[in-house]
Amino acid sequence: MKLPLIAVLLVGLSPVVYSTNIIYMLMDDMGWADLGVYGQPAKETPNLDKMAAEGLLLPDFYSANPLCSPSRAALLTGRLPIRNGFYTTNEHARNAYTPQDIVGGIPDDEVLFPELLQKAGYKTKIIGKWHLGQQPQFHPLKHGFDEWFGAPNCHFGPYDNKKTPNIPVYKNANMAGRYYEQFKIDHQTGESNLTQLYIQEALDFINESITADKPFFLYWTPDATHDPLYASKPFLGTSQRGLYGDAVRELDSGVGIILQTLQTLNVDKDTLVIFSSDNGGALYAAVNGGSNAPFLCGKETTFEGGMREPTIAWWPGTIKPNQVSHQLGSLMDWFTTALAVADIPVPHDRLIDGINLLPALVNNTIVDRTIFYYRGDEMMAARNGLYKAHYWTWTNSIEEFKRGVDFCRGEQVNNVTTHDQMNHTMDPVIFHLGRDPGEKYPLKKGSKEYSEAFQLVDPIVQEHKSKVKPGEPQLNYCDRAVMNWAPTGCRQLNNCLPVPASDKKLCTWVH
Amino acid sequence: MKLPLIAVLLVGLSPVVYSTNIIYMLMDDMGWADLGVYGQPAKETPNLDKMAAEGLLLPDFYSANPLCSPSRAALLTGRLPIRNGFYTTNEHARNAYTPQDIVGGIPDDEVLFPELLQKAGYKTKIIGKWHLGQQPQFHPLKHGFDEWFGAPNCHFGPYDNKKTPNIPVYKNANMAGRYYEQFKIDHQTGESNLTQLYIQEALDFINESITADKPFFLYWTPDATHDPLYASKPFLGTSQRGLYGDAVRELDSGVGIILQTLQTLNVDKDTLVIFSSDNGGALYAAVNGGSNAPFLCGKETTFEGGMREPTIAWWPGTIKPNQVSHQLGSLMDWFTTALAVADIPVPHDRLIDGINLLPALVNNTIVDRTIFYYRGDEMMAARNGLYKAHYWTWTNSIEEFKRGVDFCRGEQVNNVTTHDQMNHTMDPVIFHLGRDPGEKYPLKKGSKEYSEAFQLVDPIVQEHKSKVKPGEPQLNYCDRAVMNWAPTGCRQLNNCLPVPASDKKLCTWVH
Repeated sequence: MKLPLIAVLLVGLSPVVYSTNIIYMLMDDMGWADLGVYGQPAKETPNLDKMAAEGLLLPDFYSANPLCSPSRAALLTGRLPIRNGFYTTNEHARNAYTPQDIVGGIPDDEVLFPELLQKAGYKTKIIGKWHLGQQPQFHPLKHGFDEWFGAPNCHFGPYDNKKTPNIPVYKNANMAGRYYEQFKIDHQTGESNLTQLYIQEALDFINESITADKPFFLYWTPDATHDPLYASKPFLGTSQRGLYGDAVRELDSGVGIILQTLQTLNVDKDTLVIFSSDNGGALYAAVNGGSNAPFLCGKETTFEGGMREPTIAWWPGTIKPNQVSHQLGSLMDWFTTALAVADIPVPHDRLIDGINLLPALVNNTIVDRTIFYYRGDEMMAARNGLYKAHYWTWTNSIEEFKRGVDFCRGEQVNNVTTHDQMNHTMDPVIFHLGRDPGEKYPLKKGSKEYSEAFQLVDPIVQEHKSKVKPGEPQLNYCDRAVMNWAPTGCRQLNNCLPVPASDKKLCTWVH
Repeated sequence: MKLPLIAVLLVGLSPVVYSTNIIYMLMDDMGWADLGVYGQPAKETPNLDKMAAEGLLLPDFYSANPLCSPSRAALLTGRLPIRNGFYTTNEHARNAYTPQDIVGGIPDDEVLFPELLQKAGYKTKIIGKWHLGQQPQFHPLKHGFDEWFGAPNCHFGPYDNKKTPNIPVYKNANMAGRYYEQFKIDHQTGESNLTQLYIQEALDFINESITADKPFFLYWTPDATHDPLYASKPFLGTSQRGLYGDAVRELDSGVGIILQTLQTLNVDKDTLVIFSSDNGGALYAAVNGGSNAPFLCGKETTFEGGMREPTIAWWPGTIKPNQVSHQLGSLMDWFTTALAVADIPVPHDRLIDGINLLPALVNNTIVDRTIFYYRGDEMMAARNGLYKAHYWTWTNSIEEFKRGVDFCRGEQVNNVTTHDQMNHTMDPVIFHLGRDPGEKYPLKKGSKEYSEAFQLVDPIVQEHKSKVKPGEPQLNYCDRAVMNWAPTGCRQLNNCLPVPASDKKLCTWVH
């Protein structure tokens, strides 16, 4: 291919343009109202509140799913889980994720935005939980990341390494140890230094990237607020909120340290930093969970408490301080936005659900868009403007509820927080989220407002449903043989375990 | 009395020391989470959020009662309603207030802090709702205020002026008109210019006081957020939250205008401004009520949603910006604090429940204290530190609940949001409000933490209960004859109505 003269001249004469760095801080099971700036009464997040005061608050921001794996797959692919395969068809409308025995993971033909950033010259790293599949072919270094420090799964355990292996923690392509072995989490005290490791890794990566004079993308995904909760010793017992609050305080401190480092290194004006969470606070975790404050229910549900995320954008000099944007946003938008920031074209060979948020971030303009709330293979609800229509409602089964699993602790709205999967597709339950963010007062069917809201949302929903082409579901099969018995690098650590025979079967997804 | 020489010298030689002005902004039925800074998702209170950023946020601040009249009586007297008489003994633990036919009101032997400020040379004014009794002897000009613009009762109506007279609006000692007659509120559109009148009156009063070179106390009590809601035309339809939000936006605008005026007049550094509300958001008002966000239930209840108030203190130069204080505060504290600000001794001839908050405001120090949650004649609950013990629980009667009156819309916590008055005095229901601000997870009876929390709170409660001497209840009797048939000044307006014969009887208090 012949380059046009101007390009040759530019390449020949111009210094390389230093692109904007991107840091994406994705919290785990943190609720919308866990931040002081979003209303947590203990007001224990001074660094995040300062980040918001220096940047833009996005109170109408959503996950693409009320559970971690699909949410993270949507973030990185810019596509709904129903398209990128992060769902199950084993049963209707059930949440699925990537436990240790999951066979599937992020498909090779999905394009993750770090892949595109990497190709454009970015140094890329993930620090923390991955959750897009735990077999080697699904690992971050195969999907756009130069470096990795963290784990493919949740930090559940400790396991006995016989029936179930402890989860490995990777340093790039090789395992560096396992949770509860080399990487301790003390369930008795809640003590673990993992968040400190994740903070230090972030600082090292930022420093190295700047030294290498390369733009960087850091995907910072600490998981201290996911059950089992943990915090390092200096933070234990410091919160009004118990161990959950200790974990939040440590993460807040980490955010402060990272932003301060960007300022000290004088790259704050060249760095877009996003803070958000993967799904709503886990209300079933009793007092040890996050807060979704005004919103109904929590994690695992498609009510606002399950999918509205505490989101802040920070980019000094480009994003003006003290802004609030009511742009309806989705984690998927960061795919498109990251590409826009790096001046990389959006792939045209597939449907991307995310939109470019730069106009909202920089000029506080708002574009019309619809948020679709999926649970497994079902579009449960949709929001346009301030109206949200529930086409299906479900919390969890009555059997599970009776065993004490409650995704809507202490809350009950008739015909809404149902324990049967209720089909409202002919006449959805509609809320005005401005007057009624808590989804407590359905619009009266037959009223003028109901009819107008229905006419607003329903055609968009029907269009969406008629055109969506579900991807191959990745979360249907489980197999003990794929568990982390012998992760790459286990030999050097003398920590390989015997792999059992394959026993592939449909996974059981209970809610 | 002979003055000591030093006093004579001081009087003779010193210029009058200009004391600190005090503005107390008390909202009506506004919820803890109605402000952006306290977590309202629409983020529609930029002026209040700015006030908080320039001053001190008090997230652990309480009313003395979950209903307006007793709450306001407690604020002005510094004493619990059980002491100052603002309660009823007609039935156990029932809320009472000052409707139009109430016979009682603020007793003459109660000392209101505006009386003491007035004696010390302050110019004092109330603008808005009074609610401490509606017979003339209970009016503000008899109890410490130089001036009044507003009404003795809620703006309920319109009435027919036959069975029930419309509520008068007073300009000082004389009625200036009546609601729905000279002072319009349009129930169809929600339009009324009352808040604009209250804002203008505030500006006039501030200007006049400064011109007169007198320190001032302004008690600003607009009631636009109390049902029936209203806002002036420029604010109608501007909120995401409907008419309630329109009212909040107009009040927020008023706060901004008043603070800006203080700055323009260069008295901001000489003025302590407090913002708070009289009780929690009214959840039974369906979508037209305030938000108590993380807290359980609302107005009329002694759960956190009924009594935790959105409170801000602002005093540039004295209160540092961007502060948060977790001092447990009560509306009653402003009695003692106002006297401290004006350097007036606290009366020693009676028990004052309020404490001096100046150390908290100025130095962010915290003193140990207990919050008592009363409903009518019963101490329902008490908080010390982060523990709250419910000795009685009640929302409202099951009969009322079945008719659709729900003080805890969509919320239900077993053994807590009870529809019978449940006596837990032998083993209170205890919550840790740090981990569980929503009062959803009672501590397990028999656990170590329960026992320790009980040992912390119960001795204080027993001491309080054994020593409290209930004042003469003022809210037991009602009489049609005392209604606003012929308010002072009605003759000049040609608006006197015939007074019916007296028919004094026990008032009916349903919840």
